[in-house]
Order: sequence, then C-alpha cells, then structure tokens
Amino acid sequence: MSNGEEATQEGVVNLGFARIDSARRGRCGHPEVIFGEGKTVEEIARIARVIHDKEGYVLVTRLSSQQAAGLEPLLTGAVYHARARCLLLGMPPQKKPSLPIGLLCAGTSDLPVAEEAAVTLEAFGRHVVRYHDIGVAGLHRLLGEIESIRACGVLIVVAGMEGALPSVVAGLVDLPVIAVPTSVGYGASFGGLAALLGMLNSCANGVSVTNIDNGFGAACAADAILRVAERVSQ
Amino acid sequence: MSNGEEATQEGVVNLGFARIDSARRGRCGHPEVIFGEGKTVEEIARIARVIHDKEGYVLVTRLSSQQAAGLEPLLTGAVYHARARCLLLGMPPQKKPSLPIGLLCAGTSDLPVAEEAAVTLEAFGRHVVRYHDIGVAGLHRLLGEIESIRACGVLIVVAGMEGALPSVVAGLVDLPVIAVPTSVGYGASFGGLAALLGMLNSCANGVSVTNIDNGFGAACAADAILRVAERVSQ
Amino acid sequence: MSNGEEATQEGVVNLGFARIDSARRGRCGHPEVIFGEGKTVEEIARIARVIHDKEGYVLVTRLSSQQAAGLEPLLTGAVYHARARCLLLGMPPQKKPSLPIGLLCAGTSDLPVAEEAAVTLEAFGRHVVRYHDIGVAGLHRLLGEIESIRACGVLIVVAGMEGALPSVVAGLVDLPVIAVPTSVGYGASFGGLAALLGMLNSCANGVSVTNIDNGFGAACAADAILRVAERVSQ
Amino acid sequence: MSNGEEATQEGVVNLGFARIDSARRGRCGHPEVIFGEGKTVEEIARIARVIHDKEGYVLVTRLSSQQAAGLEPLLTGAVYHARARCLLLGMPPQKKPSLPIGLLCAGTSDLPVAEEAAVTLEAFGRHVVRYHDIGVAGLHRLLGEIESIRACGVLIVVAGMEGALPSVVAGLVDLPVIAVPTSVGYGASFGGLAALLGMLNSCANGVSVTNIDNGFGAACAADAILRVAERVSQ
Amino acid sequence: MSNGEEATQEGVVNLGFARIDSARRGRCGHPEVIFGEGKTVEEIARIARVIHDKEGYVLVTRLSSQQAAGLEPLLTGAVYHARARCLLLGMPPQKKPSLPIGLLCAGTSDLPVAEEAAVTLEAFGRHVVRYHDIGVAGLHRLLGEIESIRACGVLIVVAGMEGALPSVVAGLVDLPVIAVPTSVGYGASFGGLAALLGMLNSCANGVSVTNIDNGFGAACAADAILRVAERVSQ
Amino acid sequence: MSNGEEATQEGVVNLGFARIDSARRGRCGHPEVIFGEGKTVEEIARIARVIHDKEGYVLVTRLSSQQAAGLEPLLTGAVYHARARCLLLGMPPQKKPSLPIGLLCAGTSDLPVAEEAAVTLEAFGRHVVRYHDIGVAGLHRLLGEIESIRACGVLIVVAGMEGALPSVVAGLVDLPVIAVPTSVGYGASFGGLAALLGMLNSCANGVSVTNIDNGFGAACAADAILRVAERVSQ
Amino acid sequence: MSNGEEATQEGVVNLGFARIDSARRGRCGHPEVIFGEGKTVEEIARIARVIHDKEGYVLVTRLSSQQAAGLEPLLTGAVYHARARCLLLGMPPQKKPSLPIGLLCAGTSDLPVAEEAAVTLEAFGRHVVRYHDIGVAGLHRLLGEIESIRACGVLIVVAGMEGALPSVVAGLVDLPVIAVPTSVGYGASFGGLAALLGMLNSCANGVSVTNIDNGFGAACAADAILRVAERVSQ
Amino acid sequence: MSNGEEATQEGVVNLGFARIDSARRGRCGHPEVIFGEGKTVEEIARIARVIHDKEGYVLVTRLSSQQAAGLEPLLTGAVYHARARCLLLGMPPQKKPSLPIGLLCAGTSDLPVAEEAAVTLEAFGRHVVRYHDIGVAGLHRLLGEIESIRACGVLIVVAGMEGALPSVVAGLVDLPVIAVPTSVGYGASFGGLAALLGMLNSCANGVSVTNIDNGFGAACAADAILRVAERVSQ
Repeated sequence: MSNGEEATQEGVVNLGFARIDSARRGRCGHPEVIFGEGKTVEEIARIARVIHDKEGYVLVTRLSSQQAAGLEPLLTGAVYHARARCLLLGMPPQKKPSLPIGLLCAGTSDLPVAEEAAVTLEAFGRHVVRYHDIGVAGLHRLLGEIESIRACGVLIVVAGMEGALPSVVAGLVDLPVIAVPTSVGYGASFGGLAALLGMLNSCANGVSVTNIDNGFGAACAADAILRVAERVSQ
Repeated sequence: MSNGEEATQEGVVNLGFARIDSARRGRCGHPEVIFGEGKTVEEIARIARVIHDKEGYVLVTRLSSQQAAGLEPLLTGAVYHARARCLLLGMPPQKKPSLPIGLLCAGTSDLPVAEEAAVTLEAFGRHVVRYHDIGVAGLHRLLGEIESIRACGVLIVVAGMEGALPSVVAGLVDLPVIAVPTSVGYGASFGGLAALLGMLNSCANGVSVTNIDNGFGAACAADAILRVAERVSQ
Repeated sequence: MSNGEEATQEGVVNLGFARIDSARRGRCGHPEVIFGEGKTVEEIARIARVIHDKEGYVLVTRLSSQQAAGLEPLLTGAVYHARARCLLLGMPPQKKPSLPIGLLCAGTSDLPVAEEAAVTLEAFGRHVVRYHDIGVAGLHRLLGEIESIRACGVLIVVAGMEGALPSVVAGLVDLPVIAVPTSVGYGASFGGLAALLGMLNSCANGVSVTNIDNGFGAACAADAILRVAERVSQ
Repeated sequence: MSNGEEATQEGVVNLGFARIDSARRGRCGHPEVIFGEGKTVEEIARIARVIHDKEGYVLVTRLSSQQAAGLEPLLTGAVYHARARCLLLGMPPQKKPSLPIGLLCAGTSDLPVAEEAAVTLEAFGRHVVRYHDIGVAGLHRLLGEIESIRACGVLIVVAGMEGALPSVVAGLVDLPVIAVPTSVGYGASFGGLAALLGMLNSCANGVSVTNIDNGFGAACAADAILRVAERVSQ
Repeated sequence: MSNGEEATQEGVVNLGFARIDSARRGRCGHPEVIFGEGKTVEEIARIARVIHDKEGYVLVTRLSSQQAAGLEPLLTGAVYHARARCLLLGMPPQKKPSLPIGLLCAGTSDLPVAEEAAVTLEAFGRHVVRYHDIGVAGLHRLLGEIESIRACGVLIVVAGMEGALPSVVAGLVDLPVIAVPTSVGYGASFGGLAALLGMLNSCANGVSVTNIDNGFGAACAADAILRVAERVSQ
Repeated sequence: MSNGEEATQEGVVNLGFARIDSARRGRCGHPEVIFGEGKTVEEIARIARVIHDKEGYVLVTRLSSQQAAGLEPLLTGAVYHARARCLLLGMPPQKKPSLPIGLLCAGTSDLPVAEEAAVTLEAFGRHVVRYHDIGVAGLHRLLGEIESIRACGVLIVVAGMEGALPSVVAGLVDLPVIAVPTSVGYGASFGGLAALLGMLNSCANGVSVTNIDNGFGAACAADAILRVAERVSQ
Repeated sequence: MSNGEEATQEGVVNLGFARIDSARRGRCGHPEVIFGEGKTVEEIARIARVIHDKEGYVLVTRLSSQQAAGLEPLLTGAVYHARARCLLLGMPPQKKPSLPIGLLCAGTSDLPVAEEAAVTLEAFGRHVVRYHDIGVAGLHRLLGEIESIRACGVLIVVAGMEGALPSVVAGLVDLPVIAVPTSVGYGASFGGLAALLGMLNSCANGVSVTNIDNGFGAACAADAILRVAERVSQ
Repeated sequence: MSNGEEATQEGVVNLGFARIDSARRGRCGHPEVIFGEGKTVEEIARIARVIHDKEGYVLVTRLSSQQAAGLEPLLTGAVYHARARCLLLGMPPQKKPSLPIGLLCAGTSDLPVAEEAAVTLEAFGRHVVRYHDIGVAGLHRLLGEIESIRACGVLIVVAGMEGALPSVVAGLVDLPVIAVPTSVGYGASFGGLAALLGMLNSCANGVSVTNIDNGFGAACAADAILRVAERVSQ
C-alpha cells in the first residue's frame, strides 16, 4: 500500500488519504455519505467528485459554513443547507412513492438536527412530513396532529432537554419510532446526555435511539425500514 | 464536649453519638426525622425515644426490614410500613384540613418511593390522594384523572425510567410540581440518573426535583408549600 | 380517585396499585407487557390475570426465578423461560408468516439478553432465526452466515464488551439493524456503558440502539418494523 | 401539516417552524416564554410578536447580547437585561400584592443566574427581595438577615461551587426552598455538577432543585407556590 | 526476585507475596499500616507479625468482621474495632502531648468513617476530641461548640450527603481543615461523589480533601500537620 | 443457521449456543480462551471439550469458585487456580525459551489480577518473573530490583488506587510496559476508574493500557510482543 | 435588605451586589480574596477598594488578562501576575520567618497553577521554594532535590496528566503534602479528572487534595498548617 | 534550589522553569520530547535548544499553528507538520532497518492523530506503512490489505466513533495491536470516551490502548516493541 497515489482494489477507490467504498450502494442501499468534520476542504472535494462521478450525486454532512464557503469554487452546483449543515451535489435518483416519514421536532431550537434528517431523507428520495415544535409541554399540539402522524410509515422524533416526546408519541401510535436526542438545554443536559438517557429508558415500546444530534443516522434507519416494507410489497 | 455521656446545650440533646436538634420543630415546622441507614438498632432506639418523649411521635425513614425487626422489642407500639421502609411511633398532632396533595406514580414498580412520600405526609397530618400507575405510555390514564388532579394544592410526581411524567403533568396544570426520580429501570437508567436528568431538564415550567428515590424529601417540600398557603390564608 | 378498590375509566382497568391500559393493543399493536422488577408476586398475578382474561395471553419480563417460583401457584399453566427471565401465560394469536427476524449474538455470555428478545418475539408470533456467538474476534463466523442473514427482514444484534458487532453487520447488509448493548465485560465496560456508547457511535448506517440488556425493547422495535412492512404489502 | 404557512388548530398558532401554545396561560398560569438559544433572530421575532399581540407582553430567556442586538430593530420597545440575558417586550399585568420572594445568592459571580430569576419574577408581577453575596464562608452575613428572610413566602437560593447555601438556609427557616446550582467554580465543579449534586443531597428538609443555571425555572416554581397560597386565601 | 521464600534487601522484608517497607517509619514518621481488603487472612497475619515484631504494634484497616474472626486465632491479643473496621495489635509508643485533633462528624450514619480516623489517630498516640452529629441542618449544634473547636490544632470534618459541613466550619476557624466525604446518602450521592465534589469546591479557605470514606487518610494528614508543629516548637 | 444441533463451516465448530473459532490459533497465535462469566457450567464444559480435543489444552478465565466446583465432575483433570479465577485443562505445548516477562504488582491486594496474567502466560508457555508489592509508596523496593527488571523482555505492571506504578517504571526502563489497572481502592477509585485514567495519562513513554482487572488481556499483549521478537530473530 | 445602596451590619460591608466579610481576617487569619471569574470589572474594583482600604492590600484570583486590562485605570498601583492570573494591590504585612513551603511542579505546563499558589503565598508573607518540572518520568530529578525538599515545613505538589507525583513524594518525606491536580493532559485527562482521582487514591499517607487547578486553595491550606506550627511554638 | 538561573545535577539541565532530563535516552531509548500545550514559545525554544545541542534533534508535539509561527524565528530550520501538530528540528540518527509499523486509520477525519504517530515514528527512525480510511463500515477495504498488514511487525490502529477497528484487526492477525481512540464523532462520543471504552473492552486478544488522540504515545509503545525484537535478534 502506498502513501498518496491512486490505487485499485475491487470495490475501493484509493486516494491515499481516503479509500472510497464504491460498493456501498450495492451492499447497503446507498452510496457513501461524507462526514465533513475534521476533513480539509480539499479532501472533501476530492472524495465528493469521485462519488458524484460514479453515483450522480453526493451528500456531505456536518459541514460548517466556513467549509461550505471553501468548497463553493471546488464543487460548482452544490447546494449548502445551512441549518442542516449539509451539502448536496447532483440529483439523487427518483424513487417510486412509499409511505411518508413523519419528522417530529419538540422545539424550534431542535430544528438543525431535524433538518439534517430531512435533507438526508430527501437526498434518499423520501417524502418527509414535518411536525415542528410539538413538545410535551403543550400536549394538545401533538394530539391535534395525531391522526396525520398515524398515517406515516415510520417516525423520527427529535427532542432535547428531557427528551420525553418519543415516549409520549410511541404510546399513541402503532409505528416504529426512531428517537434523536439533541444537545439543546440548560446545564444538566450535559450536551444531550439527559435526552439520550431519557430516550434509551423510554417506558413505551418500539423506540430505538441514535446518537446525540445525529439526524443523519435517524434518516438512514428510517430509510432502511421503508426499504424492508418495499421489499415485502414487491 | 464529651464522648458518650449526655450533655446539655440549648436546643440540643446530646447523646454523645448523636446530638438531637430539639429546636427543629420551632425553627423548621417539624421535629427531626431519623434517617435509618448506617445506624445501629440501638442508636435508632435511643434517638427515637428522646424525640417521641418530647414531640409525641417520631418517624424513621430508610429502615430495612431487618432493622425494623430489631427495633420491635425496643420501641413497642411502633408501626413499620414495609413498602415505604418507614417506621412511625406515636401519633402526630391533628392539622386542620388544607388542600390535598396529589401523589402521582408512573408505574407500580415505583410504589416504594411513592409510599415513603405518603407515609411521611400522613405523619405530617396531610391528606394525600394517590394516582398510581399513570405513566405516559398510556396517556389516557392521566388525562382521565386530570380534573381531579387539578383540584389538588400541590403535586408530587414519582417516576423511574425516562422520568417523563412530571413534564407532561406540569404542562397540564397550574400547580407546583415536585418531581421524584426513582432507580427503577433497565441498564442505562444508571440507578435513576436517567430519570433525574430528565426531570431537571423538564421543558415544562414549575417543576423542581428531589434526590433519586427520595420520597421523604418530596413530602417535606410539598408540606412546606402548604404551610405557606396556610400562613397566607390566616 | 380511590386507594385500592377497582374503578372504571374507558381504556383502563384500575386496580388501585395499577391502572391496566386495556386500550394498548388497539393503539400500539400489542397488549401491555408486565415489567416484573420491583413488583410483588401478588401484584404481578393480579395484573396478569386481568390482561390474560382480556387478551388470551400475557407476558412478564424481568422476572427473577424467586418471583417465578412464587407465581407458579397463582398463575397455573404459565411457562417460565429462566434464561430470558420471562414468563408467558396463555397462547398469543397466530400471525400469517412474514420475513424472519435475524437475532445475532456476539458471545455465549450475551444469551440471556438475546433470549429475552427471542421469547418476546415468539410471544408476538414472529419467526426468529438465531445466530449465536458470532462476534468480531472471529469474523469468518459472521461472513460464513452472511447470505442467510441478508435474507431476514430486520436484524437484532446483541453484544457486550466493545459492542462492535452491529457496526460490522450494518456495513454488510441492506437492512434495519437494532443494536442491544449488554452488561457483559471486564471492569471498564461499566455495566454496559462501553457497548452502549460504541453502538450509538456506530460508523455504519441504519443502526439504532436500545437500552442496556433490553432485549424486550429490541423485540418491540423489530416487530414494529415488520408491521409497517405488512401494512404496505396489504 | 405543511411546511411554513400559518395554520389553525385550537389553542395553537402554527408558524410552521413553531407552534405557539396560545392556551398556555389558561392552563398553566402564564403565557409561553421563549427560550432563545438555538433560534434565529427572525424566528424569535416572529414568535414574540404573536405572543405579545395576544398577551400584552412576552419574555425571552437565554438570549445572547448578539441576538439581542439583532432583535432591537425587529422588536421596538423591548428591554434587554444583559446580566440576566433576558428580553422583555411589553408590560405584564399587575398582580395584587402577595408575600415577597426571597432571592439569596451565594456569591457575586452567581448574579447572572439570580438575575434571570429576578427578571422572570418581575415579569410575573412578583415582589423580589435580593440577598446577594451571602454564602456560607461568612455565616454572619446570612445570620444577620435571617429575620428578614423568614418574612418571605418562598426562597430561591442560588449558589455555585459546593452549593451548600440551600442546606444551611433550609435548616433555619420554615419555608419552601428552591435551590439553583450555578456553573461557577474551579475545575471539579464540572460545569455546576458539584453544586447540583450537593443540593440534591441536602440534609435539610424542604429543598427542591432546578437545573444548573436555571434561574428561570426557579422563578416559575416559586411563582407556582405563591399561586397556591393565593388560591387558598381567596 | 523469586516466588515465595523470604529474601533480603535493605529496608525491605520480602515475603514473596508482600515486600514490607521496614524503613517506612524512619522516612515517613510511622510504620506501614496494612490495608485489609483483598488480602487473605493468612497474608494479613504474616505481614502483621513482621511489622509487630519490629515496631511493637501494627494497625490493619478495612478489615471485615469475617476477616477479623479469621485473624483472631492467628494474632492473639489483637483488638478489633468493629465500627471502625480496624484491628490493632500491640501498643503504640507514647507521645508527648500536643494540640488535640477535633473530629467533627455531620451525622450518626457517618460514624464508621469517623471511627476509622479516631482509631488510627489513637494508634499514632494522638488526642482526639469527638464532635458527633453536628451537621448543618441544625447550625446551633455547631455554633454551640465553636469555642471548643477553635482550641484544637487541626480539624477532621466527616460528612456524607451534600458534604457542606467543612465549608461552614472552615469559615468559622483559623485552622487547617481536612474534609472526608462519606458514601452516606440517597441515590444521587453516587457513593459519596456528591460529598466529594462538594468538599473539593468549598468556597471556604484552608480545606483539603481525602478519598471517600477514607478516615485513615485524614488521620495521616492530620498527624503530619501536628508533626510539623512539633518540629517547629522543638 | 439452526437452533441447537452441531453444524459445519470451515474454521467453526457450531454448537448452536456457541460457535467455536477453530481457526483462531492459526490466525492469532493461540486457540480460543473461554470467558467464564455469564455462561452455565454445561456450556463451559461443552466448549472446553471441543477445544481441548483439538488443541490439547484449554484455558477458562473469570470462573467463580462455584462454577469451578460444578465443572469438576465434567472436566476431570482440570486444575483451578482460585486466586486467578482461571481453570486449565491439559498441557500447553512447550515453547523454546525467550526473554522473561516481568510481572510487577503494586500491592498484595492486586494479586488476583496479577495471577490471572501469570496463569495465562504460563498456559502460553512463557517464563514469568514476579515482583510483588512493589508500589510507589516505598520506592526503594522498586529501585532495589530495577536491574533485574531491566533484564526482562516486556513488563506487565498491575496497580490499583492511583495506578502510578507504570509511570514510574516506564521512566526507568527501555522496555514496553503494559499497564493493568485494578479495582482495588477506597471510594473514589470508582471500581478502578482512577487507576485506569491514571495509566492512560501516563507522562512516561511506552505505556499502553488494558481494561480494569484484565490480567488476561495484558498477558495476551505481552505474549504477542515476544512473538514479534521471536519472528525477527528467526 | 435593599437593592444597591450601602448598608451596615457588624462584620459586613454591604455594597448591594456584594457583602464584604470584613471580619474574615479575625476569624480565619486572612482578609477576603476576590474570585475574579464571572464578576464585572466595576464590581471587582469596588470590592477591591473596600478591602484595600481596610487591610492595606487585596488579592484577586482567576482574573483574565482582559479583566486585568480593564482594572488597570481603576486600581492604580496594582500588579498583575499574568501566568498566575492574579492581581495584587498594596503590600501585605510582614511576617516573622517560618519554615519554607516547598512548591513542586511536575511539568512546565503546570506552571500557571503553581504560580497561583506562589503568588497567593507571597501575598500571605510566606517563603516559597520552587521545584519546577520534577515529574516522575525522570525520578532522578526529584531524588536529587530530596534533601532540600525534606527541609521544608509543608509541600504543595502540582501535577497534571496521571498526577502521580504526590504519591511518590509522600512516600519519601515526613511532611504534610497538599496535592493539586491540573487540567493539563491528553484527551482522557477529562479536564483534570484523571489527576484528581489519582491524587485522591494515593497509596501514600499524608496526602490531601484540592480542586483541579486550584493553586489558591492549596496555598490557603499550606498557610493554615504553618499557622498551627506558629501557634504551638509561641 | 533556586528560581530561574541554570543549575547542575547529574542527568539534569536545570533552566529554573524546566529540568531537562538529559539521561532520558540512555535510560529509556530516546531523548525527551517536548509537550507543547501550556508552554510559552520562549520556554519551548529554550528547552528545544538544549536538547537539540545535546542530541542532534528535538521533537515538539501538541504545538498549535500559532505557537509554531512564534517559534519559527527562534528555531531556524525546524519543520512544522501542521496536521500532526508536531515540529521537528534537526535530524534523528539513522537506524538499521527493522520490521515496518502498520498504521491503520479508520477514517480520514482521524488523520491528525495518525500523523502525530507517523511523524514521531519517523523521528525515531522507523519505517511506517499507512493504511488510511479502512474502517469497519466497508470491511473489504481492510480484508483487501490484510496480507500486507500481516507482514508488519506491530500495528497502530487509530479510530474514533465506536472504535471497533482494533477488535476486528486483532482478530485477523498474530501481532501486537496498539489502539488509539480519537475524539472524532457525534455527540455521545463524549470527546473520544466511546472509542476509548470500546477499545479497552475489545473482545479480541493482544490489544492495548493509549490515551484519546495520543498518537505520540502509541508511537512510543510501538517503537519499544521493535526495540525488544532488535535486542533479541542481536
């Protein structure tokens, strides 16, 4: 193995500093998504071009606005979603319609995480219905939408602070609930630990949890659930 | 100061191993309550007799069934509340009626903590209304009692696991809510830490929190609130 | 609300110490399951009989062998699964066949948690395929079964210690992966915290996580996923 | 539900990114207060105008000075309390006098948290008496004010470092004590964790605790206590 | 070095499983003290005999009552202090009188830790004055003894729960204060972490802290302080 | 894959509840070692017989004395090392001599962990030199053996409490140092966390760390180091 | 009590936002020292002037260089010690010579904390001997100074990373050792937690510990020890 | 000892603020390496010159780009490796060839830590083979290089997030594996804690672990292993 030049191995494009997994879509359903944190703008651009050329589109997550500004001249045509901190270059393939994914968000301060999920799902060709600011301090906001929510195929529930929303929602529906804790809160949220532990300890059934602020991971899990449903229905 | 014999100081009965605060009721509203853990049966009995003789009754909390059995011959007439792990000797003074205290308990497994609160409140002469097993996984159980709950003067809400119940309740009422996390739960409850952090991060207003499994502390706080109300109304 | 006698509210059977959510199956797909820890044998028996009479079967989880022995005369015909620490009384309704659920278990020491998931799924009428002792220290054990695993509809992956198995599996399949950390391990597993954090931080997509040792929760999440698939395919 | 336009539901004003709980005052005693962190200036302004138009005033907490500067042209007439990091627009309704709320603050470095409580209480129409820099290292400062403190109706006690002040105060008074830990301290305060744990473990009775640095939450709890007293005295 | 037989090195008696530091007294002021936890009865007895033969006495700490019973026939004449969990064999050398060490203990449940300190100090030939059950919930108990306390040469302050006593004491005296947190408390004491952090964050000056429940360590630190004083005064 | 019967895959012996990695020795240098915790006696016996039949010996770690007693009739000829909590059945192959492995142990209470390492190394055919009770409180014990220690090929350093020994040793030698934290200590060792963090933060070079109480892992790492040396020297 | 104007109470100068403890020196040996963090420049200046006018000097700790710059025009003649982050205004009273305080510092990166201790001690009129960069990775640096160190009256030992230096030092001397953990280190030092736990778990006797980075607290404790010695020797 | 001027002791160059361990290479195999964090540019320059003059080269780690810019005029000829945050002045001595060190890196975001290891090893005269971006989400990337990896003498495996790579690698090779957790990851990586715990709990044998982000420490450990091999082979 060498230190910089391109090399070849089946299912891999080796750029030296990165080994692109070109077999990812065939194996797991989607091409690689680039995690932007800790990478230089040049590294992101080189990886993004390889994936874009092969797949027709590429998604970058956890991209700061400074990184996005640096990427602009290198990846013309890319769209930066500032609140979601995601960049999308190219056009994902169309999918035939499936059940919508309900994206519930406890408070307006949780929107960046919810939007990371939404942008990812839209890059995967999914239909997202957003239910924003629907936290448990005013239950009627949730109860007023519950029939619409029950019509979705899977729910992503984003909440900071005590993270109680997924428990309450899961007690009202017959759907898989993917809970996403956020780092929003006063001191003893400890960067989202409070919401994370709350969601892991949910007394309601059918809840599973992703990492703190990980809207991307929740989108992947929700998408995988719909792919099962599609496989069964074929 | 000496090492064993009784000594005298104003507001103190000094037993050597213990200094009983005989001025507590005058200063804080109630006589001393004995924390049973880590004390020998003999120590508890000696302290209990001093308080009982002066005040007419005495409460011991955090008392194991072994300790209670050991105390039986030493404190005749005492009643041990096994589930609450509390022992009461003598009869607290009657109080004139006030608003009831609502005691909400998320699950049946949380009952020992709720009962510690209830026994303490009853030793303080309060009227307690119990709402057991009313957790958020089946919201209609709570909503069906909400009018009755709103008629209370203050609420104690006991919950383990994710500890979501106080947030939901506080969003529905115009009352002080004292939240008590319990150590009930699967692994990542970490002995009640999950519920504790959840309650501290409550998105609803008016919630304050006591230590894990501390039904006694919640009872004291609720009682203090009613004493304010009584002072105002006199 | 009263303190002991039965009372009536729609969707609730109130036993005083417990409020059975009799509307749970209609709302969430399954009747209530009883969490055994912290409840007395008498409480469990009373709740179990109410659910069994209404639904034809009832499942109790987190039941110690001592509790199970105490329940035996009270719930005749109940079967106790010792390793899973679950008790099942009655016969769940038959379901029409769906995709199997793959249950992967990293090591033999993780079996109690895996069995809690398996017994729960079988009580839900699901078909479970077990892949035991398939951890990452000997990858060929996993790779040798990978085609069989890919034919499942959803995967539950149970692992203690570093909890790496879900990441490796999720990189090889196009399926939802529900990861269950266990408390198995040397000192710095900190009761399963190591595996929990490992799974939450999985670099592979489509992984969501349940509480430590919570095989029951994983079973509920997997079951909910298949219900979506069944709804779509109808 | 849609993605941006206003919509209608009883008790809700739906702005798309936010669902204002217009029934909050009726249900819980006060209109919604806006948590400023993580929201854009535009979002805050839009929410604030809706609440202000309906209620006559609106409070924003956790608002940085940069956000406040951005809001200035959008919310003319608003007053920013820099130390409390709160903004108040409009005039809260007058309340008839009640007992004063004693606001005790252990050190001058804890003032921002104490001021968040004070500004909130004043927005709620309450009378606050401030006892600043009254920590336990110089007990005579507290003892010299104790008669004045005992004349209050409820106490909020703000302290960082070891958080000992609430215990000492609660041992001297017959009043509800709401303890607020702050993040002030040397290294092992761990962002206020030391004070938080200290207050939760208070050996004195009648203490309940809010989140770290959460002066707002303490104000809500204190206000709710006085509302009970007022209800009783009517 | 070899595996079992005795061997010789200056300042060491090598028993194979243990290397006794026979130069400890000359270097650090006292002979080795045996930490009993995790050692077999036979190992303790062999080490104890070597130290006793050389120094005239030996102290064992952290010795369970089972271990003590096992040691009885092996170390005739040894005295086991059950509450302190310490065993003393032989007679420590007399010391000429110095200032007394004040041993303050917040509650009766903290006595085992205080007694570990007291027994150790008495083995070191020190004069200990005990002030038991003098916690901050009833300040007058402390204030009533403060002149006596000020006459000591150094203070050891033992407290569990929130660990506030050292701060309050240190604000009232002109003496070194050694704080010892104990593991006494309700859930969120987390085995003494709350008291430990409280003491480390003391707002009062001159406080230093030992490990949780480490009465022995506090005794060593207090003794070392008096040795300095003695050296200066010679 | 099926649920109980034996099955065949290259490099695997499938017992249903366990998949023995029969290719482990060829790939990693040693056959599988059985982790005893959480397995039934029957499971251990079945796995042990398969490995023993193929490899001529088998090692079981983390085996309680109860489990060992249960295994005795099932695995005749097995030797249980009680302090190490290890069982060895059969005779490992002889190895040609290499450099000795120095096993340093800070205190006698750390011996169980050190013995787990020693028994494992001896099962691997290694020569171990034990340096027991050589902690930093009496440095001359270490310095007196330092030339002997420098003649080893690799060092395993076992210590509880503050875990300082590996740092001191690594500053004195030109050898790889494998540090093993133990759970020995007073309260704030938090089950070995203190020693673990201490070792990870060693200011001396060449130290790497294993899990708390993991003598087995340290033995594997030391053995792997000597295998490299042997490969180079061939 | 009022909100801003000066008021009078014995032993207190009340500035409204601060209550200066003017009796501190008489009670505890030194006048108040100002903790700079979280205070405005104006607040510091006003408090400093009151103390300076009464005592002839005043010390401010934890003062950033920005705060110091802001204070310069307000407190003419003050000297800012940048590395120690301390400001001293005026001249402390002379003390008659006593034993020197040995200040040991493990590494050059720990100097800011050591200097906070040194500046404080010099403000207290103490003689400090500095032993910098004397950590355990090169033991001969410490051993070469050990006779000089033994001639001190008390030792302050400052160390980051694993914090092993206090243990090693305490095993070599017959002196009180005050250990100060610093936040210096790679990732798993967790802001000084590793060094803190290491020091609390010291296997050597006579060590007590202050908060992370708290050189000031260590200086106070060391000074108090010398005051005892001085009292004895009078 | 004095406060600033140079002094002499065997094996030490005393600069007052630093005591250079000039005997380090003889004792431990390499001269001192300077830890840059928390030191001023002037301090680093003075220490560096002393080491460089004696040894012919010097390495500085954890050096920010600002510090490096400040050092440029003071240490002419020094080379700053920005990604590794290391500076090298002078030329290390040549070594005769040995086995290569395999440096495996899970993701491109982990490169800074891997480069710290690589630069250190190259300063030690070692041959490093880099395998970048080879994490477990695409196993074929690792499996495709496994024969090349097996030809190395020792492996350093760098990974963030769940830190699973070392376990998988160690199950495939017969080599010592030094695992380096990085702080790369979403919220619940808690600054690398997740990867650290994962690696400490590795189910594969032969893994030992360094501090979070400590590429330097891993390089030292790997180098020490090769030195053993070289000693054996001589």
